[in-house]
Amino acid sequence: MNMVELIEKKRDGQALSQSEIQRFVKSYTAGEIPDYQVSALLMAIFFRGMDRAETVHLTMAMAESGDMLDLSDITPYAIDKHSSGGVGDKTSLIVLPLVSSFGVPIAKMSGRGLGFGGGTLDKLESIGGYDVNLSEEEFRRIARETGIVLSGQSKSLAPADGKLYVLRDVTGTVASLPLIASSIMSKKLAAGTNGIVLDVKLGCGAFMKTLAEARALATAMVQIGVDAGRDMVALLSDMNQPLGVAVGNALEVAEAVRTLQGGGPEYIHDHCVEVAAHMLRLAGQGERWSDLTQARVDADQRLKSGAAYESFHRMIAAHGGDVRQIEDLTRLPQARLRHEALATASGNIAAIQADTVGWATLALGAGRATKEDDIDHAVGIEVHASVGDSVAAGDRLMTIHANDETRLSAALDLLNRAVEFNDEPVDPLPLFYGVIDGNDS
Amino acid sequence: MNMVELIEKKRDGQALSQSEIQRFVKSYTAGEIPDYQVSALLMAIFFRGMDRAETVHLTMAMAESGDMLDLSDITPYAIDKHSSGGVGDKTSLIVLPLVSSFGVPIAKMSGRGLGFGGGTLDKLESIGGYDVNLSEEEFRRIARETGIVLSGQSKSLAPADGKLYVLRDVTGTVASLPLIASSIMSKKLAAGTNGIVLDVKLGCGAFMKTLAEARALATAMVQIGVDAGRDMVALLSDMNQPLGVAVGNALEVAEAVRTLQGGGPEYIHDHCVEVAAHMLRLAGQGERWSDLTQARVDADQRLKSGAAYESFHRMIAAHGGDVRQIEDLTRLPQARLRHEALATASGNIAAIQADTVGWATLALGAGRATKEDDIDHAVGIEVHASVGDSVAAGDRLMTIHANDETRLSAALDLLNRAVEFNDEPVDPLPLFYGVIDGNDS
Repeated sequence: MNMVELIEKKRDGQALSQSEIQRFVKSYTAGEIPDYQVSALLMAIFFRGMDRAETVHLTMAMAESGDMLDLSDITPYAIDKHSSGGVGDKTSLIVLPLVSSFGVPIAKMSGRGLGFGGGTLDKLESIGGYDVNLSEEEFRRIARETGIVLSGQSKSLAPADGKLYVLRDVTGTVASLPLIASSIMSKKLAAGTNGIVLDVKLGCGAFMKTLAEARALATAMVQIGVDAGRDMVALLSDMNQPLGVAVGNALEVAEAVRTLQGGGPEYIHDHCVEVAAHMLRLAGQGERWSDLTQARVDADQRLKSGAAYESFHRMIAAHGGDVRQIEDLTRLPQARLRHEALATASGNIAAIQADTVGWATLALGAGRATKEDDIDHAVGIEVHASVGDSVAAGDRLMTIHANDETRLSAALDLLNRAVEFNDEPVDPLPLFYGVIDGNDS
Repeated sequence: MNMVELIEKKRDGQALSQSEIQRFVKSYTAGEIPDYQVSALLMAIFFRGMDRAETVHLTMAMAESGDMLDLSDITPYAIDKHSSGGVGDKTSLIVLPLVSSFGVPIAKMSGRGLGFGGGTLDKLESIGGYDVNLSEEEFRRIARETGIVLSGQSKSLAPADGKLYVLRDVTGTVASLPLIASSIMSKKLAAGTNGIVLDVKLGCGAFMKTLAEARALATAMVQIGVDAGRDMVALLSDMNQPLGVAVGNALEVAEAVRTLQGGGPEYIHDHCVEVAAHMLRLAGQGERWSDLTQARVDADQRLKSGAAYESFHRMIAAHGGDVRQIEDLTRLPQARLRHEALATASGNIAAIQADTVGWATLALGAGRATKEDDIDHAVGIEVHASVGDSVAAGDRLMTIHANDETRLSAALDLLNRAVEFNDEPVDPLPLFYGVIDGNDS
């Protein structure tokens, strides 16, 4: 293929054809196109964008660049969720067992990302013995026997996306909507799912800062999924303040367990019930859940009854995890130092900057700045207040869990700027800003 | 330096600072920045452009990336000309000896380019023995002794430009005005000149198709030169039809010799007189040439007197060339086949597509499609008509000089589409469309 012509075509604002995109992705994955031509094409895409058809073709070509997982021996309808990532987002730990508790099979392979505070796999590894490195046979066996499995990738899913992402990261071409949407969706499509609920975060702690940006990304991803024959819903949810109280791996596992047992912070409970309700509606087990209100009532009931917790317990045991640590949360990794941050004056909380809390958590050692970094599962931050709360001087705002005085001090320096107060009353932040339904796309 | 930040800065429309540009060019020349980051930056420049200061800084950084030629031992004021390239453009062969005949020293190092029909060095190599590979000592000796030298590069002039050009060529980033202007001017600034007359071509046979494009490029180059302390003039000249009759290396040498002897086609004579007059004005030998009209009269006189031809003769001899070939032009390389293309009907010539004539000349073997191609000095095309001429059926339009039947046939196929006729009278094309004077920039 003539790469220069392809670059010039996109540079001059023309749409690339399906066969051009397929040949490009195939040749690049095979190492037949030099990076310097691909980075020029990526920058041209940054400026010119891609239309709906191009974005779908790129996504499918990346999905098909490696193994395509087939889950049909496990379930006739595989449902998945994806969060665009945020601070304190332990939703998967709660929602997946919750949905599984209805007999809806959950078989999820996740990649490991960089981030403020670890990904879902890192959080699960807070539990001693939990094995995320399953063979494909083990993965399928656990899925069939337990109804839920949550593992790292044993297969090479969407390697073209991995190769392109590394290049985008060093060439200033990450922040392109069609490239972001196709990157996320290529892995989802390769992972063998029939229906996907996207949880697209927006706000200072998310990649997308504004509602308009988040809506555009969510719409693009929903369109890709629909055009690829998947059932799609996207929720636009808040990430201006941390999601729930706990931020940090073991702290989040503990909060997830409390929520799975019917407790936990109201923000987390309500957020998870909403995501689960949409997953149940898509999974479409009978007529009952075509009514979202009924699905919410049922999901709330499964949390309160302990059924969701039992599903989580089964998953931990099947993965070889030490279930005593979830039966007694004090057995989870504990940090050596605990610092209480108190309010120095009275007022109404106007903002708790999620991004600042995220950087502070990273400073404590809970996340990875580079792929090689080790994670400290014990450290993290509990944020005891929410936007809209009234606090008095001396009230406890945060508890910082640290294993190192220097790191604690660095985190505190950051956290000094995280909370803003107002004399006037402040409205609480909404959990969700909107829903984009694949049936309307 | 952080290349990703630099790429993102340009991507987001900000101007790069002088030190950022200097460090980028220096590091890239030293092999310290991977091509894939540079091509992303080049594509961002394609979309965002560069302002006047950025373009000057880029040009100077590229000029200073290698040797800077110092001609002050040869002349206190070095004058040069540069043509943006066209079909049948043998101007340098005529203008440089013409200017030299006034005692204005000419010491020019040229690179070899790709093109329809060879560059100035290729044309000179039609003459047996002409040595373009002079050492710097020979170059300086001939310049001092003969007053004129026209050689290939013995020094590494602007290597950053060479490296960037190769990358631009394979990443769809050639057609960017600041990149084109800085590429040309970096080599000129490194070549040690004080004054430069630019001959910017426009039309179907030139890189710039429209007057607006050519004016923009010429303005950018003049501004760069002025900001770098050079005297600058740019002429905007026609390249819709071939420049003169002869297209092809030895054919053009013969036409140059006839013009240097006061003959030659009127188009060529007038074009060369105009370029030479501007060079004389810049070289500023006394008050006489501040009046361009006087400079034109003087230049015309030097062609008619034979002084310009004598200067050319001296240069050929000094370079080791076989002067018998210019004393008797039939001794220049002759092609084996000669084909006369006749007019099939009467009419007025509305167009002689310079680009098509150029491709036909390339098909005959007179130019290089790739750097490794050999050049056939004998082949080429004589175009006997000009736009505006009235011709009758049977009149001779072109003579095609070929060494190979297959190549001749390929050239004729192309040339079938080169000439357009009109029943109504047609105005001749102008030689020049305008002048951009550095004193106004």
